[in-house]
Amino acid sequence: MNTEKTKGLSTDPYKGVRDFYPEDMFILNYIFGVMRKTVEKFGYQEYSASILEPTELYKAKSGEEIINEQTYSFKDRGDRDVTLRPEMTPTVTRMVAARKRELVFPLRWYSIPNLFRYEKPQRGRLREHYQLNVDLFGVVSNDAEVEIIALAHQIMRQFGAQEDNFIIRVNNRKTINYILEEVFTLDPHQAYKALKLIDKKDKMTPAEFKEKATEFFKKRTQFFLDLLNAKTIEDMTEVAIAEGSTEILGTKEVTDVMHRLKLMGVKNAVFDPTLARGFDYYTGVVFEVFDTSPDNPRALFGGGRFDDLLSVFGSDKVPAFGFGMGDVTIRDYLETYNLLPEIRSKTDIMLCLLDDSVHIFADTFAQKLRREQLNVAIDMSGKKVGQQIENANKSKIPYIIVIGEDEIKNSQFKLKNLESGKEIVLPSEKDIADIILKTPEQQ
Amino acid sequence: MNTEKTKGLSTDPYKGVRDFYPEDMFILNYIFGVMRKTVEKFGYQEYSASILEPTELYKAKSGEEIINEQTYSFKDRGDRDVTLRPEMTPTVTRMVAARKRELVFPLRWYSIPNLFRYEKPQRGRLREHYQLNVDLFGVVSNDAEVEIIALAHQIMRQFGAQEDNFIIRVNNRKTINYILEEVFTLDPHQAYKALKLIDKKDKMTPAEFKEKATEFFKKRTQFFLDLLNAKTIEDMTEVAIAEGSTEILGTKEVTDVMHRLKLMGVKNAVFDPTLARGFDYYTGVVFEVFDTSPDNPRALFGGGRFDDLLSVFGSDKVPAFGFGMGDVTIRDYLETYNLLPEIRSKTDIMLCLLDDSVHIFADTFAQKLRREQLNVAIDMSGKKVGQQIENANKSKIPYIIVIGEDEIKNSQFKLKNLESGKEIVLPSEKDIADIILKTPEQQ
Repeated sequence: MNTEKTKGLSTDPYKGVRDFYPEDMFILNYIFGVMRKTVEKFGYQEYSASILEPTELYKAKSGEEIINEQTYSFKDRGDRDVTLRPEMTPTVTRMVAARKRELVFPLRWYSIPNLFRYEKPQRGRLREHYQLNVDLFGVVSNDAEVEIIALAHQIMRQFGAQEDNFIIRVNNRKTINYILEEVFTLDPHQAYKALKLIDKKDKMTPAEFKEKATEFFKKRTQFFLDLLNAKTIEDMTEVAIAEGSTEILGTKEVTDVMHRLKLMGVKNAVFDPTLARGFDYYTGVVFEVFDTSPDNPRALFGGGRFDDLLSVFGSDKVPAFGFGMGDVTIRDYLETYNLLPEIRSKTDIMLCLLDDSVHIFADTFAQKLRREQLNVAIDMSGKKVGQQIENANKSKIPYIIVIGEDEIKNSQFKLKNLESGKEIVLPSEKDIADIILKTPEQQ
Repeated sequence: MNTEKTKGLSTDPYKGVRDFYPEDMFILNYIFGVMRKTVEKFGYQEYSASILEPTELYKAKSGEEIINEQTYSFKDRGDRDVTLRPEMTPTVTRMVAARKRELVFPLRWYSIPNLFRYEKPQRGRLREHYQLNVDLFGVVSNDAEVEIIALAHQIMRQFGAQEDNFIIRVNNRKTINYILEEVFTLDPHQAYKALKLIDKKDKMTPAEFKEKATEFFKKRTQFFLDLLNAKTIEDMTEVAIAEGSTEILGTKEVTDVMHRLKLMGVKNAVFDPTLARGFDYYTGVVFEVFDTSPDNPRALFGGGRFDDLLSVFGSDKVPAFGFGMGDVTIRDYLETYNLLPEIRSKTDIMLCLLDDSVHIFADTFAQKLRREQLNVAIDMSGKKVGQQIENANKSKIPYIIVIGEDEIKNSQFKLKNLESGKEIVLPSEKDIADIILKTPEQQ
């Protein structure tokens, strides 16, 4: 046993959550920055809310599994049932319902909330993660699908992902529902269970899936599998007609969306009839962005249409289409494809002090440099200058200036670039700012 | 009873927390932006952590009242005691202790966490708020006090506060402790209770305070009050010596800090022997920024030195000085002094569509404008153009372009500034970007 630990409280964070040290925060801020910049290009406005929500908010539509087994829920001291939000969609829907009359539709909203799930911690599935949520409210037509999926595609491109390193799978809940309820005439309860089975298809072998499917589709199981295995909408229609069925509902919408996405330069969208998406509240087109890596094929994020969600607030329907993109999965993806930027400090200069007598000068000198828009720290360690420089380097600060009596007397300061080793003597803080702020990599 | 509400779930947020609609988020992001920019000027690096912490983290040092009555604490499904963090200092101390050997000191860290307190909601005291936390670890000398207080002052100035609209009160826990334990020879338990009384001084009348003080100081109560009423360190020393005591411990430090702050341009720092600050963990200089408004004099935020906090982790002492600045109080202050910026959309242009046939053109045209770094939304409402323009205006979007068949045919687009009413006809997205991005108020 580690003797350090027996001496006091543990320094570990709570199980399944993360501490963000500055280098972690740099990466998180990079990811948030790309997300923000891209969604704002498309005219989306940021909103936010508390992580605390009344538990009843999730009872209506999130899916039974999530509420019963996977949420942090507790009673507050006023005996209210409170839940730490496991997803943002119920919150944003609540906010839209609350001000439905004043808000200007179509409404383009985004947020990057932290979300909580009480699950066994594992790769890519922590108990707390961040998730970009993008929603377009008030658009009935496929214009919403086209814009949002193009936006999701654009975020991936802005992260540096190549088009052959991810695909966008598109399906329609109407299509699945039509197949289950009309083609195979399952009752709503059976159809719901079959939908959940389709959603878990990737987690089992084809044989297992077929066996479980047989419980629902009996002798017509092969027909069902043939429909799901269709690679294109034409294939699916052909299979359906061959078995005496008609064209499948909802496929025309998907065809239209994919056509318009192509016009917008999205070349990697494909139809996937097996795509279900977990949440119960989807009512139309759903999509999922998928990592095409042969080593680790997996869903990165996705979303869909949810036209009915406002009804739980007694409000009229508001058509909505949106998606959520988690930080953990996307960070793994960016790491895999080597797309994360190199970590560097936001501090431009460390002032290293030859001795403590120059500290008062350094205080005011730093203030002048800050007025020139530079980020400036002062080494207060009292260590030898060599050690101070080493520490600046270790902290990934790009420039240092050593300050001693001579520098102050002559008003000449040697700016040293720690990466290149180059030194340049400069008389004023304005000259120093010019050098640093004009270096292209510092922009 | 409102019939709307009986039809469904309530759209209210959980009691005592806030929803942030885009206009609220604009203000919050403005406040965070000024905080970030200023602390980064001083070389501080951002860190973060989960809001979930083991409850035991707070038992050691936060102060009894906070743990027993004011936290959100619950047992998780694994029977662990969990608390929603009520303050950030225990978390940051935990993180520093965990990596004490690898971290480069002095360490300049900041974060803007959300914090939770289970209190009766009232003005400026919500159950969840955000708080800038700034900490400097590893500096024993008053260099830390000088830098951090100058930084706090600079944030106020960056918000536009005038120096006569706030003052910075400075005191020393060593001074209070010396007065209580040495001058008046209270035992540690009595001294702790007397400190809490001093902390609550502003919440009672002078007569009430005197009455309660008499319990501790008996016949020497007037001497105690005279010490607390000293307006300067010289006054206090004079009072002490007149009563046969010696110079008070810790006052020289305060004198030094205030002298150096003046050299850095901080003119509104004053000595205040009544300043205690709530938390138990302070060990040296404490300060508080105070609104000087005669209508509503009140503490805005503050901080102090906490050199002993790492010891609860079995770690060696690490000197530390820091402060926390809440978003609710500062927002009230900025409102009072009319210092909040005007709300505007981050979207530069709304494309208004004459009819739906131009939508496919608008999709690609918007993409081109986005490539020129403009934030562009498309009106998908299908409403009349006049209504679309009105909605853009209501959403505080500065520019619109109406797109119809003619505009597409002639490749001539009329950019309209909704504030000035000016229109200018431009042939390409590059010209449009030049106009918008060069407008000074859009920078």
